[in-house]
Amino acid sequence: MPSEFTITRQVEFHETDMAGIMHFANFFKWMECCEAALYRSLDLPLVSFVPGQVVGWPRVNAGCQYFAPLRFNDTATVKLYVKKIGTRSLTYVFQFHKGATLAAQGEVTVVCVTADAAGDMVAQPIPSAVRDLLQVAPESTWTVA
Amino acid sequence: MPSEFTITRQVEFHETDMAGIMHFANFFKWMECCEAALYRSLDLPLVSFVPGQVVGWPRVNAGCQYFAPLRFNDTATVKLYVKKIGTRSLTYVFQFHKGATLAAQGEVTVVCVTADAAGDMVAQPIPSAVRDLLQVAPESTWTVA
Amino acid sequence: MPSEFTITRQVEFHETDMAGIMHFANFFKWMECCEAALYRSLDLPLVSFVPGQVVGWPRVNAGCQYFAPLRFNDTATVKLYVKKIGTRSLTYVFQFHKGATLAAQGEVTVVCVTADAAGDMVAQPIPSAVRDLLQVAPESTWTVA
Amino acid sequence: MPSEFTITRQVEFHETDMAGIMHFANFFKWMECCEAALYRSLDLPLVSFVPGQVVGWPRVNAGCQYFAPLRFNDTATVKLYVKKIGTRSLTYVFQFHKGATLAAQGEVTVVCVTADAAGDMVAQPIPSAVRDLLQVAPESTWTVA
Repeated sequence: MPSEFTITRQVEFHETDMAGIMHFANFFKWMECCEAALYRSLDLPLVSFVPGQVVGWPRVNAGCQYFAPLRFNDTATVKLYVKKIGTRSLTYVFQFHKGATLAAQGEVTVVCVTADAAGDMVAQPIPSAVRDLLQVAPESTWTVA
Repeated sequence: MPSEFTITRQVEFHETDMAGIMHFANFFKWMECCEAALYRSLDLPLVSFVPGQVVGWPRVNAGCQYFAPLRFNDTATVKLYVKKIGTRSLTYVFQFHKGATLAAQGEVTVVCVTADAAGDMVAQPIPSAVRDLLQVAPESTWTVA
Repeated sequence: MPSEFTITRQVEFHETDMAGIMHFANFFKWMECCEAALYRSLDLPLVSFVPGQVVGWPRVNAGCQYFAPLRFNDTATVKLYVKKIGTRSLTYVFQFHKGATLAAQGEVTVVCVTADAAGDMVAQPIPSAVRDLLQVAPESTWTVA
Repeated sequence: MPSEFTITRQVEFHETDMAGIMHFANFFKWMECCEAALYRSLDLPLVSFVPGQVVGWPRVNAGCQYFAPLRFNDTATVKLYVKKIGTRSLTYVFQFHKGATLAAQGEVTVVCVTADAAGDMVAQPIPSAVRDLLQVAPESTWTVA
């Protein structure tokens, strides 16, 4: 039952901006990449459009603190921590490290939804297949000193 | 029956890269923005997911020649010309001007698709609602001297 | 001395994701677009690479709450409020409205930097040209009831 | 002396659009990622801002043919072939495979530039460090039957 998950990525040219650093919005994309990799590792679908089993995880809150820039060709790790498992929502903390340097720390809350008859998103309890596979990470593991 | 359509856009910070210019992939996004604006102007849906009336226009070919860079805050026009109306495909030419300077010229061919019973994309004849509203632009209007 | 600034944008096809809604990271791009438009309206450079007068505004904190999705072709306003003017930092609040619906609310803190001799970013006091043109918006204007 | 180079990537959620497939502009980003990986493998800088040794490779032409869509979580290879080594330009062909399926084929021509005294881009001969490390791939290797 993982409470943490790590991916490694390299900053691509198209992810930089004219200030010569990774554009701040891309950190949010990398958080989502890490979340998707976690789901793949658990053999769980991150999204499902199967009628009657529609599952999605729209974001209700996303934030990031930036401590040091990432630059083209930099290799960085993105580490996901499960901060909170609610009835219908999950909160993740993400840490971006470039070597020993904490470049950024993010937090994202997602809500589990399905589709109602009209096709609109409706919050639903987290499927047990997901709940049974995740575990909250101790706060000490991700709290920045 | 329009054969041309023009939009004006300003280069945003996030569209630049570390070379200080608009990233080359963004010209393709701007072409699509112009195409979408044309469809809105004609009150036609660019995409429809209505069962039985699914319409989409996936790209089968896209190209761009770059003559001069666009930079942050630059204002540029994107002009679409209908180059060819086929049975199931449309070909557009796009010209990007910054003032009198031709910054780039692109060409995109899209195919009209619907969804088959399995949900896969299948090419279909261009709906008459679209065909009746478009007209081929004379080659002289978009040929670069 | 503006304390608010509003732009209007339309959701482009490339800004959507497979869930059929505007991807959550794009809200951060739109916030930056609004900030850039404010600077243009004040005739201030958002970024300057002139040696000795280098000015940039890297983000140190960015967050967004999502209340309702935006979809392809939706028109939305992004309204910037100056929340706080610090010595070296500015905090903006952003509200996204689709008609009367508050779709999202964000907050971004940027720090004013210049480049030191080595080319690294160093925080500096906000230039008076900027400080003199901005004014804090009353909290009542942007607080969600 | 490589004439080919291959990377493997997985389609991320943010790379999809509301049609449920990887947005067509992202294929151009992947081509650039493959080119950047080739340069890293050769220990060559793709871009250099060192005064007097500024090197960049702006695109003058980019195109892509799309044969089959890529979807979220799909793993695909991007294979670069050196098609032509000119005096100041390089032309690459890129093939995207998902398993045995050719999903797309692209072609990009880049020009080697340096910066003149005013900071503007000026075409220059390809540095020998680059020229000596690349080799043209036989046309038979990348021609689609």
